[in-house]
Amino acid sequence: MDAIDVIRAKRDGGELTPEQIDWAVQAYTGGEIAEEQMSSLAMAILLNGMTRPEVSRWTQAMIDSGERMDWSALERPTTDKHSTGGVGDKITLPLAPTVAACGAAVPQLSGRGLGHTGGTLDKLESIPGWRASLSTAEMLDVLRETGAVVCAAGGNLAPADRKLYALRDVTGTVESIPLIASSIMSKKIAEGTGALVLDVKVGNGAFMKTLPDARELAETMVAIGTDHGLRTVALLTAMDRPLGNAVGNAVEVAESIEVLSGGGPSDIIELTIALAREMLTAAGLTAAKDPADALRDGSAMDVWQRMISAQGGDPRAPLPVARESYELTAPASGILTRLDAFGVGVAAWRLGAGRARKEDPVSFGAGVICHARPGDKLVAGQPLLSLYADDMSRFPRALEALEGAIEIVEDGTPDLHPLIIDRIS
Amino acid sequence: MDAIDVIRAKRDGGELTPEQIDWAVQAYTGGEIAEEQMSSLAMAILLNGMTRPEVSRWTQAMIDSGERMDWSALERPTTDKHSTGGVGDKITLPLAPTVAACGAAVPQLSGRGLGHTGGTLDKLESIPGWRASLSTAEMLDVLRETGAVVCAAGGNLAPADRKLYALRDVTGTVESIPLIASSIMSKKIAEGTGALVLDVKVGNGAFMKTLPDARELAETMVAIGTDHGLRTVALLTAMDRPLGNAVGNAVEVAESIEVLSGGGPSDIIELTIALAREMLTAAGLTAAKDPADALRDGSAMDVWQRMISAQGGDPRAPLPVARESYELTAPASGILTRLDAFGVGVAAWRLGAGRARKEDPVSFGAGVICHARPGDKLVAGQPLLSLYADDMSRFPRALEALEGAIEIVEDGTPDLHPLIIDRIS
Repeated sequence: MDAIDVIRAKRDGGELTPEQIDWAVQAYTGGEIAEEQMSSLAMAILLNGMTRPEVSRWTQAMIDSGERMDWSALERPTTDKHSTGGVGDKITLPLAPTVAACGAAVPQLSGRGLGHTGGTLDKLESIPGWRASLSTAEMLDVLRETGAVVCAAGGNLAPADRKLYALRDVTGTVESIPLIASSIMSKKIAEGTGALVLDVKVGNGAFMKTLPDARELAETMVAIGTDHGLRTVALLTAMDRPLGNAVGNAVEVAESIEVLSGGGPSDIIELTIALAREMLTAAGLTAAKDPADALRDGSAMDVWQRMISAQGGDPRAPLPVARESYELTAPASGILTRLDAFGVGVAAWRLGAGRARKEDPVSFGAGVICHARPGDKLVAGQPLLSLYADDMSRFPRALEALEGAIEIVEDGTPDLHPLIIDRIS
Repeated sequence: MDAIDVIRAKRDGGELTPEQIDWAVQAYTGGEIAEEQMSSLAMAILLNGMTRPEVSRWTQAMIDSGERMDWSALERPTTDKHSTGGVGDKITLPLAPTVAACGAAVPQLSGRGLGHTGGTLDKLESIPGWRASLSTAEMLDVLRETGAVVCAAGGNLAPADRKLYALRDVTGTVESIPLIASSIMSKKIAEGTGALVLDVKVGNGAFMKTLPDARELAETMVAIGTDHGLRTVALLTAMDRPLGNAVGNAVEVAESIEVLSGGGPSDIIELTIALAREMLTAAGLTAAKDPADALRDGSAMDVWQRMISAQGGDPRAPLPVARESYELTAPASGILTRLDAFGVGVAAWRLGAGRARKEDPVSFGAGVICHARPGDKLVAGQPLLSLYADDMSRFPRALEALEGAIEIVEDGTPDLHPLIIDRIS
């Protein structure tokens, strides 16, 4: 087998054979295919696409590059959720304990944020003492004890994907649906979950800006899951405005705790319950306790506290608070017709909540709290957003990011996606 | 400027700005753009193409990466020819001295062979003592003394092209007309010739297999030349059968000497004269001596001998001869309707006349002599091809390459391109 033959086959619009795919992924991981060869292949894949058999095989080859985790020792069925990433998307935090409280086990390997969308691990790390790195044996212990674990993926989980993702990141080859779908699914299948619910975000704050792109990504991922015998369902959900009111790290943990206490913003509650029901159904737990009840009766909160403690965190410790704050008030009276997720996400990122490079630290206290939501009637001068940062110098560029992201009109209705747009199975 | 932005612009079907092109070529040459970034850009260019302004600017940027030679110290106008490469294409050998004998100067920087098409320098190096490497001062001396010089390009001639070509070679990104055209033209413009005639080969033995592809390449190169103020003309010529009878190194030198002696195969004579007339016209020498006369009266041969001597070669020394030979006879009686250039080229390459990797040596004596040409009437058992190699073990794989390359039918006419198919200016 020869790298140039594989590149040419895809470049000329052909379908790669299973042997070509297995060899390409294996030889790349082993260093036999050079970075510059894989990047031209990635560009050819981006521009010429992949068929369903190709993308399924590519995913399999990436799984086979590392270990596949196994939770069959647990007495409960496993189920997990993956979100393609959004602004204010802290759903995993209330969701994982809720699903565990209803009888399933949630073995979630999660990631850190890069750019304007935050990462679940960054949020959880704002809890004093909490640690993201667990061995497989520790994961099993936490799952047995509490029913849910959220931690970092180990180095041997789809190493081909890790290497390829770093390459795509610097070669303009990230935006390929087959490559995105196989990247996500290889990690989730290798994670060993028995069922999977995908939350594919749509809108200016999401990776997929348009509904057709988001639908194609969702369908591709569901197809890959199905081809691998994993029960997979996807929801297409709105990311044209922030999810909930808090965007950042500690502020999102605080909002999640509100939801686990039976309160919190209605969109977070609605999406948590919808995703929890899908996760339980996909896991075959149709007669389980209802997630809405688990939030109401404190059983989800109980799992949360045990889950945080099991990973060294103190669930009752005060959360970090930013040193500085700035209040942005409504510049006019009227209806708030737009509060773009992207603008708010970039503002939070620039305030210090996110990172520009993998090596950067994040500020746990930094972020944005939205005091109004699209559709609300505002009076000029009333608080619209609170910005938090450790350093005053961060406010001007964060405010710049918000320019054009906010629209107030005398009379009008926001043109927004419904929270849950569609379901793909 | 950022590599990923440039890659994305081309990937998404946009036109690169002059600033983006200048920066990309310069940053790549300087190592600021990594190999894996340039290879994904090259694949995006291959699949999405380049406009005429883009390809002209790209060529300029590659020229600007090194020195541009200057022959204004010569009293004669300069003119050169470039062939896209074919099987048995020794035309430079009789052509350069013929054009010099008619009053122009030919400063030809040439290359070595790779794969099934030979290289002019490899052929000339079969002449005992002849050396390909000259300094610019030595080139000027040889041009002044003889009117023609054929030698290797120095390291500072379009170094961006050298680096990019090596990358394209291993990343499946060779077959892009804008990249091929800009590679050839950057070197020819940097070479400093005042006029240029392109011999674009068409057929199974050529890089461009089809007439539309060859025409597009020719038009692109003529456009680049014109945009750079270089008088440029292209001939599209046949490469569906070998050019002349000899394919190899020393055997092609011997055939060239026959032509310079007033004999030789008719197609070599016809193409040499046609290209020489174009070169003289492009150089503005419309009232010059006719090339046919220069071949007939020995003046071209005189330049040849002085040119070879000036580079250390002995024009009268016996040429290397291969140790072994094998005669392939006509398997049937009838008309020879096909003798594919590609099959004969691969056979000569496998006999040792060409190289598989840049570092490989070539055998000067190896090659093929064709005893018949398409259209000839054959009697079963008569000599068809003589194969030459330094080692008997090379014959079986060379014969394999000829399977299917030869067709003899009872009655029929070869379906071939005319020798000179078209002219583009």
